[in-house]
Amino acid sequence: MAAVVLVQGASRGLGLEFCKHILSKKSEAVIIATCRNPEKALQLKDLGVRYPEKVTILKVDVTRENEIKQASEIVKSKFGKIDLLINSSAMLHPSGKGETSLRDVSSEGLVATLTTNTVGPLVMAKHFSPLLMKGSGAFGQQTADESKHHSGILVNMTAKVGSIGDNRLGGWYSYRMSKAALNMATRNLSFELGRGRPKVVCVSLHPGTVDTDLSRPYHKNVPKDKLFTTERSVQYLMNLIDNLSVDKTGKCFAWDGSEVPW
Amino acid sequence: MAAVVLVQGASRGLGLEFCKHILSKKSEAVIIATCRNPEKALQLKDLGVRYPEKVTILKVDVTRENEIKQASEIVKSKFGKIDLLINSSAMLHPSGKGETSLRDVSSEGLVATLTTNTVGPLVMAKHFSPLLMKGSGAFGQQTADESKHHSGILVNMTAKVGSIGDNRLGGWYSYRMSKAALNMATRNLSFELGRGRPKVVCVSLHPGTVDTDLSRPYHKNVPKDKLFTTERSVQYLMNLIDNLSVDKTGKCFAWDGSEVPW
Ligand SMILES: NC(=O)c1ccc[n+]([C@@H]2O[C@H](COP(=O)([O-])OP(=O)(O)OC[C@H]3O[C@@H](n4cnc5c(N)ncnc54)[C@H](OP(=O)(O)O)[C@@H]3O)[C@@H](O)[C@H]2O)c1
Ligand SMILES: NC(=O)c1ccc[n+]([C@@H]2O[C@H](COP(=O)([O-])OP(=O)(O)OC[C@H]3O[C@@H](n4cnc5c(N)ncnc54)[C@H](OP(=O)(O)O)[C@@H]3O)[C@@H](O)[C@H]2O)c1
Repeated sequence: MAAVVLVQGASRGLGLEFCKHILSKKSEAVIIATCRNPEKALQLKDLGVRYPEKVTILKVDVTRENEIKQASEIVKSKFGKIDLLINSSAMLHPSGKGETSLRDVSSEGLVATLTTNTVGPLVMAKHFSPLLMKGSGAFGQQTADESKHHSGILVNMTAKVGSIGDNRLGGWYSYRMSKAALNMATRNLSFELGRGRPKVVCVSLHPGTVDTDLSRPYHKNVPKDKLFTTERSVQYLMNLIDNLSVDKTGKCFAWDGSEVPW
Repeated sequence: MAAVVLVQGASRGLGLEFCKHILSKKSEAVIIATCRNPEKALQLKDLGVRYPEKVTILKVDVTRENEIKQASEIVKSKFGKIDLLINSSAMLHPSGKGETSLRDVSSEGLVATLTTNTVGPLVMAKHFSPLLMKGSGAFGQQTADESKHHSGILVNMTAKVGSIGDNRLGGWYSYRMSKAALNMATRNLSFELGRGRPKVVCVSLHPGTVDTDLSRPYHKNVPKDKLFTTERSVQYLMNLIDNLSVDKTGKCFAWDGSEVPW
């Protein structure tokens, strides 16, 4: 059976680019692309029209557990497994800009950011991990030791600014906190899904600074060679994913393969 | 003027014990004790009756920013400063038990835990940091270098299970994630409140495993000598606090003074 990839947050930015990349580079794979507003996701719709056999678009607002659950039931009955799940959706803050100081911090902003960036990906893992455990191990590298083979890979898109140890500047309270908590979720998942057999490899990945709507307010501060196109970032990330194995589960890697400290 | 301590989450457990300890050991200090339901906090009410000149009880549900703001205005007009703020309130999960596996994870449980354990303490910091900046440096140790003197100390009560690097077991998703995110908040606060003058020392503290309602469901698994009384834990923690200086800001310490990795 074909490799099955689920990209959550596929309407724009890196999520959309993962879909494009997989369609052009992994001809054996089919994609389930989820987004909260399929009607408005014009580029994704276009992919669906161009690759009708390969792309299934489902509505998932990642803040709504019932939509996640419904989508998991559809995927279960239609595909019966997933080989790779990428949680890509996130926001800096409901205002579109990270807090520069406590003045900008609010209870609502924090809760909204944590709900989208942290709770959403973990609730995705809850409902889709049974399908990842039914995967065929189509992505990543299997270890020589057969008892450590994996069936699926779960990627949580994180950010280097979510590293507590690497934080030397402060600011961006909601976003930083949401990604630190997401990294904890990744690590917890790596234990729960790495204990039995088959195993699911769980990692947090940092894509670099990438030219998307999310980073747009800050582009003028980024040296030009440090601002990746989505194509370039996804190339790096898919290369990383292709080289994942159970030995790397529960960690956080940057686009260049370096491990990001917690 | 007297030293001013604010204990947030003072109805029970470690928060209540901090109030008792300070009243008996720091005779020069006055306490603002906040809790979400003052009428029901019988032991705290009793302290208020026994020390009417020293204890001010205010209603703060830490999930409600307006209550936090109102309390900060009362403290400002009545005391004009804070020397030590301890954020103590937290829950394991709305059910009272940490999730043992993904089956127990839910969007509501995660959001509720993050809102109380993570958002609450940071929103406290937002509204009370101006008063911490007016503190007299009554707690901790001032450094020889006068330019690094601190006016106040902010303590976020965290937990060792909130360490991502130290996590070798998984489980307790909501609680672990909430404390990892809280540790990020502590670190962010240390930069924002450590930049100018006066400085506020910000730390996360792990109290050990302590005999309170929070840990009750797990007491039978804890060797007896590892289960601290609240008195013992608070003695350790106040000793740590008495030895804090700006050099230690932005870090996480356990009751025995050892640094907890992120
Ligand atoms: N770009 C960077 O420089 C950078 C750096 C570090 C990490 N990252 C991480 O990389 C990932 C992708 O970011 P990006 O740059 O591609 O961001 P982006 O272009 O702003 O796209 C964000 C995506 O998240 C979706 N989304 C937001 N809230 C959602 C919800 N409640 N339910 C479902 N989807 C939701 C958006 O959908 P709508 O179209 O419906 O709004 C959109 O597809 C994120 O996790 C981000 O934190 C990015
Ligand atoms: N006990 C341990 O072994 C242990 C270990 C590691 C870390 N800690 C940390 O130490 C701190 C104190 O814990 P504890 O053991 O003393 O817990 P506890 O005895 O269960 O007390 C929890 C406190 O939090 C308050 N609280 C809960 N939700 C609140 C809200 N929305 N607004 C205001 N207050 C709220 C409770 O108030 P009500 O009375 O109104 O419910 C109570 O005063 C926590 O941060 C905990 O994570 C404890």
